[in-house]
Amino acid sequence: MPPFQRVAILGMGLIGSSIARGVRARMPGVGLAAADRDPAVCERVRALGLVDHLAEPGEAVRGADLVILAVPLGAMEEAMAQVAPALAPGTVLTDTGSSKAAVIADVGPHVPAGVHFVPGHPIAGTERSGPDAGFATLFEGRWVILTPREGVEPSAIARLADFWRQLGSTVETMDAAHHDLVLAVTSHLPHLIAYSIVGTASDLESVTRAEVIKYSAGGFRDFTRIAASDPTMWRDVFLKNRDAVLEMLARFSEDLAALQRAIRWGDGETLFRRFEASRAIRRAIIDAGQDTDAPDFGRRH
Amino acid sequence: MPPFQRVAILGMGLIGSSIARGVRARMPGVGLAAADRDPAVCERVRALGLVDHLAEPGEAVRGADLVILAVPLGAMEEAMAQVAPALAPGTVLTDTGSSKAAVIADVGPHVPAGVHFVPGHPIAGTERSGPDAGFATLFEGRWVILTPREGVEPSAIARLADFWRQLGSTVETMDAAHHDLVLAVTSHLPHLIAYSIVGTASDLESVTRAEVIKYSAGGFRDFTRIAASDPTMWRDVFLKNRDAVLEMLARFSEDLAALQRAIRWGDGETLFRRFEASRAIRRAIIDAGQDTDAPDFGRRH
Repeated sequence: MPPFQRVAILGMGLIGSSIARGVRARMPGVGLAAADRDPAVCERVRALGLVDHLAEPGEAVRGADLVILAVPLGAMEEAMAQVAPALAPGTVLTDTGSSKAAVIADVGPHVPAGVHFVPGHPIAGTERSGPDAGFATLFEGRWVILTPREGVEPSAIARLADFWRQLGSTVETMDAAHHDLVLAVTSHLPHLIAYSIVGTASDLESVTRAEVIKYSAGGFRDFTRIAASDPTMWRDVFLKNRDAVLEMLARFSEDLAALQRAIRWGDGETLFRRFEASRAIRRAIIDAGQDTDAPDFGRRH
Repeated sequence: MPPFQRVAILGMGLIGSSIARGVRARMPGVGLAAADRDPAVCERVRALGLVDHLAEPGEAVRGADLVILAVPLGAMEEAMAQVAPALAPGTVLTDTGSSKAAVIADVGPHVPAGVHFVPGHPIAGTERSGPDAGFATLFEGRWVILTPREGVEPSAIARLADFWRQLGSTVETMDAAHHDLVLAVTSHLPHLIAYSIVGTASDLESVTRAEVIKYSAGGFRDFTRIAASDPTMWRDVFLKNRDAVLEMLARFSEDLAALQRAIRWGDGETLFRRFEASRAIRRAIIDAGQDTDAPDFGRRH
């Protein structure tokens, strides 16, 4: 039994459109409505037939028992303000944003009485953006973190968790501040570093951009994948999860400085010891089903 | 026509064993000899039937017209000293090391008169190590950089280039110092950063190792692949290409500090502009055939 009868999705990018496809595939009969502020996105959503009902935000959420805000963090407050008057008591409201304290601060004040707000975050994605990039199985085998505040109706949390499980995910609940620290290290810092090194490599006077591209198979190309992610989404992540990102970045810079020092002083023992420890983490990620066991991510050779 | 009749490979790890497999597949009839100082590796090479003749280094190179040093950078000098007395005039000698100035300094002085030393570096690999990890198509579509010194016999360079082309590679020639700068940014810096962030993430008091593993699909897992590479090989790379790596690292740290500052000051415009530029590089790498066009590296969903 699907836990909701009518789902409304605000924002039909990679995540929103993947949810729509997942609902179609796994919960037949459930009504799907959506809104997106970009007319080009709306056109694609219509052409792809992703939802039953594409409308303005206030109209899309009417009659929905689950409303999902899947817009970039910087657009959450505006999206919420638009739909708030149309939310009926009993509606479950969630989001997919990568920083939970920010969403709670921006969305929370607009939540009408009787609406159950359960912030959420699926740890899934690709470097592609937009409604054409989504697919129904994006959330399979991935984690979804919910960060409900105290006092929220437990049945609302349970229904939302059930919804994600029906899309193939495993659901975990934690404190919003802790979520933001965890994501700062597992997602935000890696993206920042990837964006940064791609910038460094493309802006050297001693090595040309053409050389960087040609010889990228030595390792660099791996970083370009996540650095190709949506710039709007990621700008907002760094602005909205600033403190946790800066904290993790300080830790990273310390650790990098230690390796730099070992290189400068020819301390091979330190380098070897640190490098060896990394293999265990990779192994654990593969064993946890969070990455492929195939060499080179299974790229074709 | 294969450019060599008998190939000897010193070091049968990922690279050496892939060359052996490639020769078998693409140059039938060419004799293959090999040596490896690790008895466990020798046992696997024998069990896999990778070469015709497995022997001590001095014995393996006897009668070879191409000798390839495929050992870690820190073992190049010793391997060369072992084989030098057995190298016949006219032999082409090359290597696969990731830092060319270091190889030239360590190997060069031992090269007997009449032996043609052409340092080389295939820009190819996976995160796996050892003779079981190799495969015949590893070099297909990849670049090989040769860094011959002035005065080296042109026909020796041409034959070695032909050899690599027959394994599927495209060959480029450049100055050793320039190679070392190019590789510092396209390969060594990415590996150092990947090792560093994996170290940071697995050594936090606020976020557990189990959480890092569970939620690694947010980006972190991408870094763990290259951070699972052979620790001995990479320790040697950083010790042997120290100056170029430190130079690129300084550039990276500056660029990262600029992004850090933009985050601290809420400068979304700078972040957006930098992030947007990265997409073009990713596109160029895909167009150059140096990475897959499939989202998420083509990982299965």
